[in-house]
Formats: sequence, structure tokens, C-alpha cells
Amino acid sequence: SKANEPAPAPPIVHYYMNNLTTSRNPVENQETVLILTPLARFYQEYWDNLLKLSYPHDLISLGFIIPKTKEGNAAYTALQAQVTKTQSGTKSKRFKSVTILRQDTESPLQSQSEAERHKMENQKARRAAMAKARNSLLFTTMGPTTSWVLWMDADIIEYPPNLIQDLAGYDVPIVAPNCYQRYYNTEKKANEIRPYDYNNWVDSPTAKELAAKMGKDDILLEGYAEMPTYRSLMAHMYDASADPGTKIKLDGVGGAVLLVKAEVHRDGAMFPAFPFYHLIETEGFAKMANRLNWESFGLPNYLVYHYNE
Amino acid sequence: SKANEPAPAPPIVHYYMNNLTTSRNPVENQETVLILTPLARFYQEYWDNLLKLSYPHDLISLGFIIPKTKEGNAAYTALQAQVTKTQSGTKSKRFKSVTILRQDTESPLQSQSEAERHKMENQKARRAAMAKARNSLLFTTMGPTTSWVLWMDADIIEYPPNLIQDLAGYDVPIVAPNCYQRYYNTEKKANEIRPYDYNNWVDSPTAKELAAKMGKDDILLEGYAEMPTYRSLMAHMYDASADPGTKIKLDGVGGAVLLVKAEVHRDGAMFPAFPFYHLIETEGFAKMANRLNWESFGLPNYLVYHYNE
Ligand SMILES: Nc1nc2c(ncn2[C@@H]2O[C@H](COP(=O)(O)OP(=O)(O)O)[C@@H](O)[C@H]2O)c(=O)[nH]1
Ligand SMILES: Nc1nc2c(ncn2[C@@H]2O[C@H](COP(=O)(O)OP(=O)(O)O)[C@@H](O)[C@H]2O)c(=O)[nH]1
Ligand SMILES: [Mn+2]
Ligand SMILES: [Mn+2]
Repeated sequence: SKANEPAPAPPIVHYYMNNLTTSRNPVENQETVLILTPLARFYQEYWDNLLKLSYPHDLISLGFIIPKTKEGNAAYTALQAQVTKTQSGTKSKRFKSVTILRQDTESPLQSQSEAERHKMENQKARRAAMAKARNSLLFTTMGPTTSWVLWMDADIIEYPPNLIQDLAGYDVPIVAPNCYQRYYNTEKKANEIRPYDYNNWVDSPTAKELAAKMGKDDILLEGYAEMPTYRSLMAHMYDASADPGTKIKLDGVGGAVLLVKAEVHRDGAMFPAFPFYHLIETEGFAKMANRLNWESFGLPNYLVYHYNE
Repeated sequence: SKANEPAPAPPIVHYYMNNLTTSRNPVENQETVLILTPLARFYQEYWDNLLKLSYPHDLISLGFIIPKTKEGNAAYTALQAQVTKTQSGTKSKRFKSVTILRQDTESPLQSQSEAERHKMENQKARRAAMAKARNSLLFTTMGPTTSWVLWMDADIIEYPPNLIQDLAGYDVPIVAPNCYQRYYNTEKKANEIRPYDYNNWVDSPTAKELAAKMGKDDILLEGYAEMPTYRSLMAHMYDASADPGTKIKLDGVGGAVLLVKAEVHRDGAMFPAFPFYHLIETEGFAKMANRLNWESFGLPNYLVYHYNE
């Protein structure tokens, strides 16, 4: 279809929000899932995993937002090729709809190397820009029939095909699996795994004290030695020998993989691009949801994997 | 069309957000306007004024959210009759699309009389519920081609047909006209006008001091003698003999009539249902937009009229 030419809208549509469920049995109840991905780089494994999702694809809509950078152009081309292939291929694999947004703002940081983007002084501007990108994507793609929103970063390249059913099965407003990374341990000469996403945490008295002393525009960041928060990080709670279904309450969440009941967003929970209780982006989202009386949970023993650059 | 049956979505849609303008000349640039109305009561004059809008109707989408109350049922029936009539009538009067949402939550306050809903102790719960209703409507109806969002309360029953062009002409992120009410002055035995909406204001040192001393969940309210804020109220700035185009900067806005560039909402500006800088709903929205670096303006001498119960 042509750029910026909207599909012809039906003249009148009525929706009874009562009839829209978000339940423990989403497949049975034909609940629609919107998978949202801010995408700066395209990984084939990301797409392959989406295709392997066992949730009925005709209940899944996909939404992407891609930055206006050279890297974004390449990602766009690669994504487009896969989307076209899938949407014209086997019927059962086709998704309900795909929306691709090209951002109109310049990226504050051109370099996207893992080292560069994790530098503390780059985090505030970078995460504010990410928050705005996530909000644009969310506000633009969520529709009246969306029951669930699954946030999925573009560099998540491994998870079980039952991911959606597994996460929805907890029947909680917001739920995050534990995001790890595979790597080669050169000392032990073995393939191992290590924590990747440090944004899933339980608050600490230290972090609260730090926040209380901060200027109104300062933010607390997790995972930096310069600013020890002593929060309990879900990344460190993984236990291969424990109950794989363990669920804990979280105060901050990451957006790498995050299942959210659509009503949480509909109540107004978004990703603050400004310091909100000294938190920003996905961590600020958990706090905002909390102010709207929605709780966040984490699954320490349910692993999903981030690409290793 | 049947309830909760979405229109068939096209398999792939691309949008270049660059190509989406919000300009001083919205008609020329074919910019799409989404008019959003939380609607508890239906007034024929509201609908008649919408029909008289000179902005091309094929660029206007309408969105409504209606409470789950007896009053809401009556409003729904009345709205539906008018929508059906318009959308099957003269082509030039038909709107691009109409979305009607029925709320799934109970209204915190059943009585909607003007006296009852303006009672200070009822305001916090009522405005929190209104904020959630506005957010649901916004998150659900805003699409990739929306350039402007015009908030319009259901009891706004008089304004110039060029309203959209007039407001867009200011080319500012957020703009509110002055909301008045016609009444019969029994003393003077004459038809007169008086201010209605006190939510459009410029902040004051007193209000800031009050806020600084408040508990984190307390809110400042405007228009109550019990809590004098000494803010400068746009409602009191109307001057029939002054420049009708005068524009002032505002710190708090009302939602009775409010034109917002869609990118403001896309950045994440919504209606906080929780105290945000001790502000809630539309007043909190102005503050949140401000945190996202968007400014709000008011037009003291541009009048729109609220129904007089
Ligand atoms: N739209 C958009 N997506 C981005 C941008 N920068 C990164 N991303 C994507 O946002 C997600 C998170 O970013 P990433 O750099 O992986 O963050 P990290 O893994 O937490 O360091 C990934 O899916 C990226 O592809 C950007 O400027 N715009
Ligand atoms: N969806 C919804 N709309 C409501 C509800 N209560 C009021 N409204 C509408 O919201 C707008 C503002 O409410 P109103 O009672 O007029 O507020 P006021 O004029 O500021 O006192 C109007 O368009 C009402 O019809 C509600 O519970 N749900
Ligand atoms: Mn990443
Ligand atoms: Mn009103």
C-alpha cells in the first residue's frame, strides 16, 4: 500500500469495552495481541522467533518504529523483505496486520554500539528518545480491539514459542521474563549465559534515599558502579534449580520483553521521557502504572535471550 | 457494523512520520483532525455545531467514549441516531470515520448535576475517572495519520464554524479558547455571558507555595473559595474591546475545547489520573506536556459556549 494513505475507514464503528477481555486463556477468548518493537537493527533470529510463536498469528498485530538513520534505513529494508515474504506466504504464519513507522526526529546518539549506548552520561538523552519512540509507536498503533501489548526489542533472538501464552497465564497487569545473553567464556572455554537487562528490579532503601536527595531533573540509573543503588536485581535471581514458574513483584521493569494488559496503557501508563520519580522510560513506566494502581511482576527463572554483539 | 468486529486490516502499512504535518494551513496540507469527546449527555446543539464546521469533513474523524450508566445509555442512543443520519446523508457533511467506545468501568459519581460534580470533595475521584476515560479514548483512536487532536466536551454548544482553522492558525502545540456560558441575568433582566471553565490559568507564587507544602497525593483545584490560589484565570481576562486574536501562555488548561498537535500526545503527554505536580486530568496534561517541552496557550478573547443547565 502507498505511504501515508490510510486504509478506508468504516463510517461508524462501535466497541463495547466490556467485551474485550484480557484473561488467563487468551487463545480460547480470541484476544488480540499487539507486538511492539522499536527497531534500529534487524536480526534474522528476531524474525524467525516471531514466526515460531505458537499464539495464533491472525490474533497478532505487529508494530515497528525505525529511526531516521543510515542504520535505520538498512533495518527497514531488511524488515520489509521479511514482512513481505511472511504476509504473502503460508496463511497460518501471516500476521493480522503490520504497521511500520519511520521516525521523524534525529537520533540523539548516532553510534549504537553496546559500549557507547551504555555509557552513563549518554543514558538520559538516549532513554528519553527511546521513551518518545515507544510512546509514538504505542499511541499510534493501539486500537479498540487490542487486549495485550507485548513489548519486544529487536535484538531479542531466543525464547520459547509459547511465550505469549506463558506470560498471559500469570494473569497480571505487567510481566517481564528475565533477559539473559549467551556468551563464550574464554577462561572456562565454554558456552555460558549471563544477565543482560538490569532494569527489572525491586526498590531499595538506598535508592529511595538517593532519589530523595536528588534534583528534580536527576535520574537514578541501574547497573552503574558509580551509582550503587542496592536494588534487588531480577537479573541476579535466576536459579536453574528452582521453580521455573516463580513470580516476584517488581518496582522497575525493562522493555526488552514485557507483556502489558492493554487497559494499563489505556488508563494512561506510558513511558516518561522526563524524570518521573527520578525514573525514565521503562523504569518510569512501572512507576506510572503503579500510580494508576497496576502492579508489575517478574519471572526470574523464565529466560529470554538478547543478541550478543 | 457489528460490535467488536474490527475492520479487516491491510497486511502491511508504512507511514513516514516526516510526511505528516501540523501546520498553520491544515486544509491546504490535507491534515487529519481527530475530534475526541467524552460524552455523558447528548445535546443536539453539540452535534449541529459539529456539522457546521467548515473544515473538510473528510479530514475529520470523531471519537466518543460514553459511560456505562443509564444516562450514558440515553446519550448513546441519541448520538447513534445522529451519527447514522449524518453518515448516510449529504456526502460533504459525512465525517471520515466515527468510533464510539462504551466504557467498561462504573462511574464513580452517578449524579452529574452541575452543583454535584463541582463539589470539591467529589473533584478528585471524578477528575481521575475523567482522565482515564480521556486516555482510553486517545490511546484507542489516535492513528498514524492523525495530525491534530481536538478535545471537545459534549456540552459545548456554540462556536464559530472556522474553529479548527482559527485555532490551528496559531501554530502552537496546545491552544484553548475561552469557555463561557450564556445566562439570563434576572437582576438586569438581560441575556448575558459569564465565565464557565476555570481550568485555563497562569500559575501564581501562592499556588506554588501551596503545592510545595502539600502531601504527595494532594491536588490543587481551581475555582474554589476554600483554596484561593491567586492564579491568573483566563476566564477573567475576556475583553470584548481588545484584540480578538490575543494569545497568552498558560500553565494549566481545561479540556472543554482544546486543540493539540498529535505529536504532543505521541511524545507521551496524556491526562494523569494521579496527582502530577499536584495537578490532575487536563491541568496535569498541560504540566506533562511542559515536561516534554511543549507549551500551552490560551485565547482570552476567543469564546466558545458551554451549555447552561
Ligand atoms: N525507533 C528506535 N529504536 C531504537 C533506537 N535506538 C535503539 N532502538 C531499538 O530499541 C531497542 C532497545 O535499544 P538497545 O540499543 O538494544 O538497548 P539496550 O539493549 O538496552 O542497550 C532495540 O530494539 C533497538 O533496536 C532509536 O533511536 N529509535
Ligand atoms: N465517558 C465519560 N464522559 C463523561 C463522564 N462524566 C462526564 N463526562 C463528559 O465529560 C465532559 C466533561 O464533563 P462535565 O460534567 O461537563 O464537566 P464540567 O463541565 O467541567 O463540570 C462532558 O463532555 C461530559 O459529557 C463519564 O463518567 N464518562
Ligand atoms: Mn538491546
Ligand atoms: Mn461540561
